[in-house]
Amino acid sequence: MKKLADYSLDELRLFEEQAKKEYNEYLEKGVSINMARGKPAAEQLDLSDDLMSLTKEQVGFTSEDGTDCRNYGVLFGLNETRKLFGEMLGVDASKVIACGNSSLNLMYDYLSQCCSHGVAGNEPWLFNKNRKFIALVPGYDRHFAIAEHFGLQMISVPMTSTGPDMDKVEEIIKDPDVKGMFCVPKYSNPDGITYSDETVERLAAMKPAAKDFRVIWDAAYIIHDLYEEHDELKNILDTAEKYGNEDNFVMFASTSKITYAGAGVAVMAASDRNIKEIASRLTLQIISYDKINQLKHAYIFRTLDDVREKMKQHAEILRPKFDAVLQVLDEKLSGLGIAKWNSPRGGYFISLDCVTGSAKYVGQLCKECGLTLTSVGATHPYGIDPDDQNIRIAPSCPTADELKVATNILCAAVKLAACKELLSGK
Amino acid sequence: MKKLADYSLDELRLFEEQAKKEYNEYLEKGVSINMARGKPAAEQLDLSDDLMSLTKEQVGFTSEDGTDCRNYGVLFGLNETRKLFGEMLGVDASKVIACGNSSLNLMYDYLSQCCSHGVAGNEPWLFNKNRKFIALVPGYDRHFAIAEHFGLQMISVPMTSTGPDMDKVEEIIKDPDVKGMFCVPKYSNPDGITYSDETVERLAAMKPAAKDFRVIWDAAYIIHDLYEEHDELKNILDTAEKYGNEDNFVMFASTSKITYAGAGVAVMAASDRNIKEIASRLTLQIISYDKINQLKHAYIFRTLDDVREKMKQHAEILRPKFDAVLQVLDEKLSGLGIAKWNSPRGGYFISLDCVTGSAKYVGQLCKECGLTLTSVGATHPYGIDPDDQNIRIAPSCPTADELKVATNILCAAVKLAACKELLSGK
Repeated sequence: MKKLADYSLDELRLFEEQAKKEYNEYLEKGVSINMARGKPAAEQLDLSDDLMSLTKEQVGFTSEDGTDCRNYGVLFGLNETRKLFGEMLGVDASKVIACGNSSLNLMYDYLSQCCSHGVAGNEPWLFNKNRKFIALVPGYDRHFAIAEHFGLQMISVPMTSTGPDMDKVEEIIKDPDVKGMFCVPKYSNPDGITYSDETVERLAAMKPAAKDFRVIWDAAYIIHDLYEEHDELKNILDTAEKYGNEDNFVMFASTSKITYAGAGVAVMAASDRNIKEIASRLTLQIISYDKINQLKHAYIFRTLDDVREKMKQHAEILRPKFDAVLQVLDEKLSGLGIAKWNSPRGGYFISLDCVTGSAKYVGQLCKECGLTLTSVGATHPYGIDPDDQNIRIAPSCPTADELKVATNILCAAVKLAACKELLSGK
Repeated sequence: MKKLADYSLDELRLFEEQAKKEYNEYLEKGVSINMARGKPAAEQLDLSDDLMSLTKEQVGFTSEDGTDCRNYGVLFGLNETRKLFGEMLGVDASKVIACGNSSLNLMYDYLSQCCSHGVAGNEPWLFNKNRKFIALVPGYDRHFAIAEHFGLQMISVPMTSTGPDMDKVEEIIKDPDVKGMFCVPKYSNPDGITYSDETVERLAAMKPAAKDFRVIWDAAYIIHDLYEEHDELKNILDTAEKYGNEDNFVMFASTSKITYAGAGVAVMAASDRNIKEIASRLTLQIISYDKINQLKHAYIFRTLDDVREKMKQHAEILRPKFDAVLQVLDEKLSGLGIAKWNSPRGGYFISLDCVTGSAKYVGQLCKECGLTLTSVGATHPYGIDPDDQNIRIAPSCPTADELKVATNILCAAVKLAACKELLSGK
């Protein structure tokens, strides 16, 4: 197939006219579709109706060790919750702290602690005016926002198909002011990439100049497979331990996309030393987290297989949506050389790179047509994509039919924006 | 009645012998009673069985404005929750943010924000090496622990029967390094004192030298009356507004002692400017709090009267416990001039002052007898009561019969410790 860049001027004008016609059809029809955020659809939330309606007769109010979950106490959360997440993350239950409903909250708090109190006896990060953080791009806007909030100057490192560009990472961490990085190691947001074994090994082996370097290991999609054939992620803590680097990593996960996005259970997991240091804050910050919600989750999920079963039900709902987007992208854009995208086997996003310098215009065209995308630029630090090319697609909420319409609009917009760029160069 | 200090040496020795005999009887009997912490008793938690067992059929999953409570979103919490707490605290719902299960967590986070980011455009507290905080004594150990954690040097100010010693407070706040104070304005921990109207007025009128002075207004026991005749607290935000000082106060409350200590709903409330500033952090810290729990609480508590009804049920359980303690204190210690205590009309504690220099010994005697008290000294900053006289009694968990035994042991110990002090001076 002929690449758009190789089209003659006349061919390009004809192509643009056709794209314009397609776009205008949707514009006239008038749509209203939101593909902006990685929220579960209502039908996914319905999968946890049992959780919503558990009674005291069913669940009781005591955990397996007899703790009255209604009262204060048990700072680290219920043993059964810690054990379940421990299995999910591949770490011992003793290294897991089961908390409230938000893993983002736990990440924020952890970085806040690093900033105000320092890590492992080192100076609080706030007192270092040159403090920096590695930002993998494209990445998750809420990660970037937290880093920005704490004045961590972000250094962008591109993602590759196997994870972060490790050559770059290994170079940057020679600077002792570089204090850490956010990673979404499985089904990354937004690429849907799972770090290769080699990448995990290189991350685990890192010897950063900063003695207080910390990787925020956001296992947001650790069990969120869409297909039978799914990605496997090498165990980071086990691997890091080989190098004596287990303290470099703090893991976070939640049931936000397993049960309820707004009312699940979140955990953190880390080395014994890190857990001890986190506990030194936690014991002052809260008396205990909501153990009733933990108990109810433990009732629903006795084993990790119960979780896997639930995730299959989610996949049944999500897979056709991902397939719908990917099919239209393939039909409309493949071979033209104006867009690249991935076909993730899990997670919540598809990442689309269009022609350099055209993403904002694509976003604008989509918006005018009634299609809301994640704010263009949001996948980069400070909301600025220097190449203006990345667009995050969040297919979870709309229906498959809506997604077909949405992706058709998106493809028409990508074509129009590409024509604009190419024509301006002719 | 003759004061112990006026006893002759022989009378004192006889008195000591009798106290010793009484103490030894309990020692031989062997008891195991915990009066250490302000936890609700299991029978109080049973009062919320309905909350534990609500079903989707009853509650649905949407709030009154149609929000799907299972999903992300609505950072400030449900309108119905904000409205209910607004009524409880006497502020408009728009000034209330409904959050997770722990008000202590909210206080910690607020002070953390003051420390790392500053207040109202002023320098972050962490960058002020002389930062200080007023500590009302006796007070709540967890408040002190948070202040200590953030390096806020604590200046003790004594409580009076009408609240903080305001002459002292007004003097201390002339120092611009004094950044704020913790208050438990109704049924204070541990005194059970409610601030008088005059005290609230003087607090509201304060013009601290620090432009970023903040009072942590911990309304932990705002609706926690024990008797028909209960204390009334003047509205702090309304009063402060008269003086243009509404930004000096941030309020906190929760249902921890209304429904479940470990799984209730907590809120913060403040002026519009403070709420806006808090939101600037909150929007980065979390996507949303657990709205399902908020929804279930809103189902149980449609109006403030529903809460009051529940509080009457709590009072039915707690009142006989407080009465049991107070009766024994009165029988055993009144008139001797060796102990002072209050008779609170609400809250969770009774505060006992014994002979100066004897509280630690009282604690030790109680411990040896199988009675666990709140660690002596805990009611003061850094765990050190300079007068070594204050003991916090938490009557909520033991039964009334246990409390009689416990208070008898305590009284015997107070007598023995007083004799020791007096005899050493003879």
